Amino acid sequence: MDNNRMRGKQSIELDRGVYIMSSASVTGKKEGEGPLGDKFDIVCDDPMLGQDSWELAESTMQKKAAQTALEKAGLSASQLRYIFAGDLLGQLIATSFGLETLDVPLFGLFGACSTCGESLALGAMTICGGYADYVMSLTSSHFGSAEKQFRFPLEYGNQRPLSATWTVTGSGAFILSGKRGKVRISGITTGKIVDYGVKDSLNMGAAMAPAACQAITQNFKDFDRKPQDYDRIFTGDLGYVGQQILWDLVSEQGYDIRKNHGDCGIEIYDQKTQDTHAGGSGCGCSAVTLSSYILPLLEQGTWKRVLFVPTGALLSPTSFNEGQSVPGIAHGIVLEHCR
Amino acid sequence: MDNNRMRGKQSIELDRGVYIMSSASVTGKKEGEGPLGDKFDIVCDDPMLGQDSWELAESTMQKKAAQTALEKAGLSASQLRYIFAGDLLGQLIATSFGLETLDVPLFGLFGACSTCGESLALGAMTICGGYADYVMSLTSSHFGSAEKQFRFPLEYGNQRPLSATWTVTGSGAFILSGKRGKVRISGITTGKIVDYGVKDSLNMGAAMAPAACQAITQNFKDFDRKPQDYDRIFTGDLGYVGQQILWDLVSEQGYDIRKNHGDCGIEIYDQKTQDTHAGGSGCGCSAVTLSSYILPLLEQGTWKRVLFVPTGALLSPTSFNEGQSVPGIAHGIVLEHCR
Repeated sequence: MDNNRMRGKQSIELDRGVYIMSSASVTGKKEGEGPLGDKFDIVCDDPMLGQDSWELAESTMQKKAAQTALEKAGLSASQLRYIFAGDLLGQLIATSFGLETLDVPLFGLFGACSTCGESLALGAMTICGGYADYVMSLTSSHFGSAEKQFRFPLEYGNQRPLSATWTVTGSGAFILSGKRGKVRISGITTGKIVDYGVKDSLNMGAAMAPAACQAITQNFKDFDRKPQDYDRIFTGDLGYVGQQILWDLVSEQGYDIRKNHGDCGIEIYDQKTQDTHAGGSGCGCSAVTLSSYILPLLEQGTWKRVLFVPTGALLSPTSFNEGQSVPGIAHGIVLEHCR
Repeated sequence: MDNNRMRGKQSIELDRGVYIMSSASVTGKKEGEGPLGDKFDIVCDDPMLGQDSWELAESTMQKKAAQTALEKAGLSASQLRYIFAGDLLGQLIATSFGLETLDVPLFGLFGACSTCGESLALGAMTICGGYADYVMSLTSSHFGSAEKQFRFPLEYGNQRPLSATWTVTGSGAFILSGKRGKVRISGITTGKIVDYGVKDSLNMGAAMAPAACQAITQNFKDFDRKPQDYDRIFTGDLGYVGQQILWDLVSEQGYDIRKNHGDCGIEIYDQKTQDTHAGGSGCGCSAVTLSSYILPLLEQGTWKRVLFVPTGALLSPTSFNEGQSVPGIAHGIVLEHCR
């Protein structure tokens, strides 16, 4: 094909400009009290967002994120050609009930907490391919709905090991288009499932680190880059435990990312005061951190190029109870400042 | 953009050839005893496929479908650039554990039983956009894993109303490429979430029919076609109840599709002898029917143009128990015979 956009084994290069026109971050109260608190667009003090269930609360957060991103871009929902969206809940119910009133063609996605990367990748490919003028990429997670589904009902008051991460209550929305903006998506490295046999659902950083290592090092190879070619490399939600493992694994591959690696799960909470143990996690974690913290610094030009790598742990309550391992997946998105 | 591929409000036209190189259908015993039984590539007599759980049985079926499609195309897994795949289970565990050994970059998808259409759409957009030489689109469902998750454990032996459909045990895999073949994907109409407020999880045909109507009639408008411009229009799994509703809804829009409409859920079982009530359903239903029945007739030229519209009911056990409605979604794929 003459419009070959493949790069190396696992990456693509977006030769036509794909820009992040606007973004929005909506979070819960705990996230609002964290280090990024004053950067979020909306902080919801009521964890139920006025709804009767955690699931509908999460749907409501998605709606707010979508509306805010649309307002910032000066667009109406009818101008969006597609939404690429997902969440952590079985059958993506936060998304189905959150986005139905927007009345926009929908591609439902699931990549666990890596879904923010998956949605940006497919959204960018859609714009670059001439399939749409505007698309929205959106993800969410909610502490209440996720704990209820994956672990224990909140009322049970179980203890959490120090390796556990805290599911971020948050939703991030991004509007992509071909119209020149300040931040461009220039490349994508789509992840494979990587399974090191970790079986501890309360240590997801360890389960996801090998997939993050695979995506990051393959990105270096495919684009012929070194770690220092990126001002920052942000993983999604490895947390403190997963970060150490990632550094070790990447180092075994001959790269050192300790100087420029950050993790959205580490950025979003203050470990000392917020009792969130290993850090934040969830589909919303990387999404709201990208929107509130990473994108503004790219827009300003403080950073010129960032590798954003949301990470996902592919487990379900059923697979966990049946003794299966927790495979990981991670999707890399190359973001560049545009003058 | 100069490579504008948008068509009408909700569709795209694939101006570069995207072909279905090969496909595979793997089913359970009951499907093998149905009208399409002798057309499937593999019929598995053991519903557990030698595994210890329904979920791993479904994963094993996915592996068999993927391997068979690869063999037919004369490809190895390492030649696939992406897999677009999904299933009905929470957090797509049939897919995660079914495809991890293939070691191929994965986009996990969820559109309930419409996922076969979603995976073909994104796979075709990826080939047409020059992002890959070969991709695989794959979906599955399994009666045992689906009943356990959505309704009652099989051991409970509950009665099923006549409006209920029977989840197909099956997995269909499709390899897409730009290399000229006998069947081409020429257009895509991506569906919106349509919610008529149906709350009966044992009447999913009624829940999905409005979404099917929206996608089908929008496809007519976007491509400026009449129903008779298609030799056949196949919905995914509306069954007998949903088919009647679809005909009525489409007729209200001024179109008559009764002469050329078929439904994969109706084709796959013999209603008189197989006790499957309203018909078949599930991610695997439309996939194995496309592979075994629809594609061969397109390849032979018996049909020149088919509109394939997998339909999905967006519910989860949680949303159902919380009293939510069952919204529907449907994705239209235009398939054409190539001389």
